Amino acid sequence: MAPFLHRPVIEAAERRIRPFIHKTPVLTSTFLDSLSGKKLFFKCENLQKTGSFKARGALNAISTAREEGALNGVITQSSGNHGQGLAWAAAQTNTPCVVVVPKNAPQPKIEAMRGYGAEIVFCEASMKDRLETCERLAKEKGYRTIDPHNDYDVMAGQGTIGLEFLEQVPSLDAVIIAIGGGGLAGGVSRYISEKNENCKVFCVEPEGKELSKSLDARDRLWDDSKLLTTIADGCRPLRVADKCFGELLDTVSNDHVITVSDVEIAQSMKLIFERMKLVIEPSAAMGLAAVLQKPEILQDCQNIGIILCGGNVDLTNAVKLMYP
Amino acid sequence: MAPFLHRPVIEAAERRIRPFIHKTPVLTSTFLDSLSGKKLFFKCENLQKTGSFKARGALNAISTAREEGALNGVITQSSGNHGQGLAWAAAQTNTPCVVVVPKNAPQPKIEAMRGYGAEIVFCEASMKDRLETCERLAKEKGYRTIDPHNDYDVMAGQGTIGLEFLEQVPSLDAVIIAIGGGGLAGGVSRYISEKNENCKVFCVEPEGKELSKSLDARDRLWDDSKLLTTIADGCRPLRVADKCFGELLDTVSNDHVITVSDVEIAQSMKLIFERMKLVIEPSAAMGLAAVLQKPEILQDCQNIGIILCGGNVDLTNAVKLMYP
Repeated sequence: MAPFLHRPVIEAAERRIRPFIHKTPVLTSTFLDSLSGKKLFFKCENLQKTGSFKARGALNAISTAREEGALNGVITQSSGNHGQGLAWAAAQTNTPCVVVVPKNAPQPKIEAMRGYGAEIVFCEASMKDRLETCERLAKEKGYRTIDPHNDYDVMAGQGTIGLEFLEQVPSLDAVIIAIGGGGLAGGVSRYISEKNENCKVFCVEPEGKELSKSLDARDRLWDDSKLLTTIADGCRPLRVADKCFGELLDTVSNDHVITVSDVEIAQSMKLIFERMKLVIEPSAAMGLAAVLQKPEILQDCQNIGIILCGGNVDLTNAVKLMYP
Repeated sequence: MAPFLHRPVIEAAERRIRPFIHKTPVLTSTFLDSLSGKKLFFKCENLQKTGSFKARGALNAISTAREEGALNGVITQSSGNHGQGLAWAAAQTNTPCVVVVPKNAPQPKIEAMRGYGAEIVFCEASMKDRLETCERLAKEKGYRTIDPHNDYDVMAGQGTIGLEFLEQVPSLDAVIIAIGGGGLAGGVSRYISEKNENCKVFCVEPEGKELSKSLDARDRLWDDSKLLTTIADGCRPLRVADKCFGELLDTVSNDHVITVSDVEIAQSMKLIFERMKLVIEPSAAMGLAAVLQKPEILQDCQNIGIILCGGNVDLTNAVKLMYP
C-alpha cells in the first residue's frame, strides 16, 4: 500500500480544473472564534459547482482520461454528490455520461443530474445491484467507470482544496477533513503533508467508523458492504477505499482522528446556518463539531481550517435536525 | 429636498469602516443565469458582520460622531437588524449603547444585541411608544439617537456597498436594491449614479408601497405610522424616510421601480437557499424576484447586480415560507 499520489500530481490537477471550478471563498466568524477559543477558517465547498467538492475530482478524472486517449463516455453509481459532480464534469467536457441511481434516491438529486444532461439508469437499492448494473452497462457501452473515491485522479482533484486553502490562509496549523470513502481526506492530506509540515491533518468521522483502529493495525478492518447509520449522509460508507487508505496511512497520525456524534453534528450545523448564513449538509458540520467537542486533541493548534464539504441538503429535514 | 449625500462622503465612509467590516464576496450561479437569461451578480451582505448591511451604516454614524466630538453613548429603537448593527458598531468603538426593543421582539435578536454588550430597554409594541421611549432615554442619558434610515451618515455607510460592488464587478449595467425605509437605496443609488452613468439603479418593493407614485408626485404620499403586511420583514416600513426620499428623487427614475408579491419573494428565496446555498431573509430575495418576474423592465440590462441585504431569519419559518 505505498502511496501513489504526490504533490505535483495535485498541482497538475489544479491547473487542469481551474478554468471550470470556483476557487471557493474562505469565511470566518468572530462568534465561532470566541466560542472555540481558536481562529477558524471555513473553506466553502458548499458554494462549489454542483454544491459539493465532488465536482473537482470528477472533472479531473474525466479530463485526465481524455488527455490519455479516446473516451466514449463515463459511468458511475451514486445517489448523491458524486453523481451530480460527474454529470456536471461530463457536461463541461462534452462527454456522454450515465449515472446508475438506486430507485429510492431523492428526486431533486436525480433532477439535478438530468439537468446537467446525464442519462439516468435506475436499479435496486442494494449496493450489490448498484455495482453490478454499473459494471454491466460500462461493458455494454464501452464507458469508463469513475469511482467516487478509489481513484487517484479523483483524489488528486479533491486534493486541490488543500492547495487553494494553504494559498488563501498560509498560517493554518491544522486542517480538519470529514472522512467517508476517503477521497477527500486522501487527496487533501497528501497535499498538505507534502507542502507544509507545520500544518497538521486531522480526520473527523461519525461514531462507529473507528478509523484509528484500522490505522493502528495498518489494515482495513471494515466490512466493505456496510453503511454507517448517521445523519452525515455523505459519510455513510463504513470502509475507506483501499487507495485512499494507503494515502492516509502515510499522512495521518492515528491519534489525529476525531469522532463526533449525530447530536454534536446537528448542533454545529445549526451554528453554521444561524451564524455563518450558509446552507450546509450534515457532513460539512463535522469539522466544527470536532473543534467544539474535542478541544483537547486540538490544544496545540490555533489557526484551524475546516472544509465545508457540501450544501446539498433537504431543507425541511435539515430544520428538523437542527430544531428537534 | 435637495440631495445632501455625495460620492466623496461615501468614499470617506468606506475608508472609515473598512478595517471593521467584511468586504463581502460577490457570488454567481450558472443555474440562475440560465433561468433568467441574464448574468447575475449577488453581493452577499447576508455574510456581513451581524448578518446584514446595517453594520455599515451604524458604524459610520458612530465613528463620524466620535470624530466630531465627545459621544456619551448611542441609542436607537429596533426589533431587528439595525439594533444588531448599532450594538455591534458600538462594541467596536467602545461606545455605550441602548436599544429600545418592543416587548414582542424575537428572543434570538435580543440575545444577539446583548451579546454585543448593548443595554436592552423594553417598551410597548406600538411605534409611538418605541419612539417616545427612545427620545426620553436619549435626553436622560445624553445619548445620541441613531435613526435606522433617516441619517446621512447611516446612508453613506450603506452606500459603501455600491462602492465595493462596482469595484468587484465593473461591468454591471444595473443594480437592484430592495427598499424599506430607504437608507440602503438612498446610499447605494447616490453612489452608483455619481460613479457610473452606464449602471442603472432599480428599486424593488413589496406590494402596497407604491414608491413610483410618490416619485411621480415628487412628494411622500405615505402615512408615516403604517407598516406593510409582507413576509419581507426588513421592508415593512410603508414610508421612505424624508432624507432618503430626497436622494431617490435625484437618482432613481420613476419607471425603475419593480413591485413583487410575497409568493414571488418566497419562490426566489427558495432558489437562493437551494441553488446558492445561502441563508437569506425574505427581503434579500426581492432582487431575484424582480429579475425573474419583471423581465420586461430589465430588458436592456445584461449584467445585473443584486444585493442580498441580510440573512437574519428564523429558519423554521423560512422553511414554511419556501415549502408551503
